Amino acid sequence: MAVYTNIGAEQMARIIDEFDVGALVSAKGIAEGVSNSNWLIETEGTGDGPSRFILTMYESRVDVDDLPFFLGLLDHLAGHGCPVPRTIHDRSNRPYRLYEGKALALIEFLPGVSVSEPTPAQARAVGAALAQIHLAAADYPGQRENDMGLAAWKRLLGDCGDDAITAIDPDLADTIHRELEFISQNWPEDLPSGVIHADLFPDNVLMRGDDVAGLIDFYFACRDLLAYDVAVTHASWSFSPDGAHFDPALSRALLAGYDAVRPLDENERRSLPILARAAAMRFIATRVYDWLHTPQDALVTRKDPMAFARRLAFYADPGNAGIFEQG
Amino acid sequence: MAVYTNIGAEQMARIIDEFDVGALVSAKGIAEGVSNSNWLIETEGTGDGPSRFILTMYESRVDVDDLPFFLGLLDHLAGHGCPVPRTIHDRSNRPYRLYEGKALALIEFLPGVSVSEPTPAQARAVGAALAQIHLAAADYPGQRENDMGLAAWKRLLGDCGDDAITAIDPDLADTIHRELEFISQNWPEDLPSGVIHADLFPDNVLMRGDDVAGLIDFYFACRDLLAYDVAVTHASWSFSPDGAHFDPALSRALLAGYDAVRPLDENERRSLPILARAAAMRFIATRVYDWLHTPQDALVTRKDPMAFARRLAFYADPGNAGIFEQG
Repeated sequence: MAVYTNIGAEQMARIIDEFDVGALVSAKGIAEGVSNSNWLIETEGTGDGPSRFILTMYESRVDVDDLPFFLGLLDHLAGHGCPVPRTIHDRSNRPYRLYEGKALALIEFLPGVSVSEPTPAQARAVGAALAQIHLAAADYPGQRENDMGLAAWKRLLGDCGDDAITAIDPDLADTIHRELEFISQNWPEDLPSGVIHADLFPDNVLMRGDDVAGLIDFYFACRDLLAYDVAVTHASWSFSPDGAHFDPALSRALLAGYDAVRPLDENERRSLPILARAAAMRFIATRVYDWLHTPQDALVTRKDPMAFARRLAFYADPGNAGIFEQG
Repeated sequence: MAVYTNIGAEQMARIIDEFDVGALVSAKGIAEGVSNSNWLIETEGTGDGPSRFILTMYESRVDVDDLPFFLGLLDHLAGHGCPVPRTIHDRSNRPYRLYEGKALALIEFLPGVSVSEPTPAQARAVGAALAQIHLAAADYPGQRENDMGLAAWKRLLGDCGDDAITAIDPDLADTIHRELEFISQNWPEDLPSGVIHADLFPDNVLMRGDDVAGLIDFYFACRDLLAYDVAVTHASWSFSPDGAHFDPALSRALLAGYDAVRPLDENERRSLPILARAAAMRFIATRVYDWLHTPQDALVTRKDPMAFARRLAFYADPGNAGIFEQG
């Protein structure tokens, strides 16, 4: 939870007036976003009644140079009918503005809630929405490499050092070395690539009942293997949050939803087990790093790396190889 | 800023379903409230389109036994046309519910922003709104003593001890002793009393332009001298936040706005200088206490006690005696 920067009402009114959205009515700092400040904004609108937006201030982590890619992607996907919020451009048609040296973007508000106990129907809808953005982004011209890939995991984990990692769990450092080696050796070649969300956890999906009302938080979006995005989404939707319990019904529904919109090809499907191990490793890497670099009393809740070590163990168990086979 | 308790979407939907307000559409934890958790809730409504509410979870400070007084007061004032949010009762007509041992209330959402640079027109509107609630509460039957009066200031400051207070500012302990003595000796008798807000800072007023859209956060409301409430509001609206600059135009506008709705009588007006010193002392007492008892790295921002020591010095200066005279 976070609002790192205080903006007074008068200043906020001036900021909102830089956009053609009507006068500011209400601004509430909201407790979302790990490294950004966010406000839920209401304005008088421009004719059809009140309008609502999310104002995001990028505090760190997000590189301002990447904002045109992220914000342009929202517009591209929304324009292709995906459930994604549009970026509101300012009166000079800029997708973001600078305020006291920090970037600010005004983004369409989408209603909906982030579920914490997904149902198979919801997982199916999320799989379908993921496939929809993969297809819709096919002609998006923006370029951004995945800066959170294998090289980054090695660097982050190397920075932590084995002693610190072993202090989290006695077997974790060995597991990491073995898996990094395995993933490096077995990374699939020649799979379809494109623009991926790369972080489609339940937190980043707004649901209304069983329908996906919004996919949000595209700040890890990049170009990489589409099936890797399926694996990330699988790892984040098919388990209990602590990773201890796999739910086969959620897994099947998610994959079926994806397949119904963009059928995975044979190579992609065969690669899902290794990509799922890679997805688990990606979140082990960042969570281990954050665990060891976040003060225990910080504003930000530290997320347990072992929740993804458990997923990794599940995916690496040959007894579970069947979960990705065509249903 | 604060959301101390996490409530998952499914649990939140069940909570909201206990009220006759339509199904949950959106819930955003908001960064407001020092000791409560608050969510901005949107529901499908019950016929007239979406509805919005603030869901408040009382984490500490607020005594559950006082909730009927506070929440009943909101309903009473709203029923008398005051700009105050109504309490939404649950399907069993309870004004609050218990969730995991904590009290939860669903309160009408009012649009508007809390200004940080008030104008005289806004100060006038706030003065009038304060007088309006004083009049409207005249037939409110609820009883609650002011537990943040002179005895409480003495207790809080005594708990801190002179050494710690002197560490904040070398003259502060002496000032406090002198003023507590002066206020005790000169407390006015026989002034009109009634239900007061007791904390009507700009943070607790939602404005739309020059109009008061909402008075909120009645969790210090109690029975005390009405003119003391005027003094608290004067101390919180007529100065720069650090207390270093008094704005005579804001002061005049606030008092004129109040007088236009409920004219202060001669005794009340004559007592404003001492009540203003008392109001400054009330916030010195709590701020000194919180300053010395809040870890520097806590979630809650510590508020500088000296901001009210400066107001106290201003009010105690005989050269400023004229500010409360009839304009």
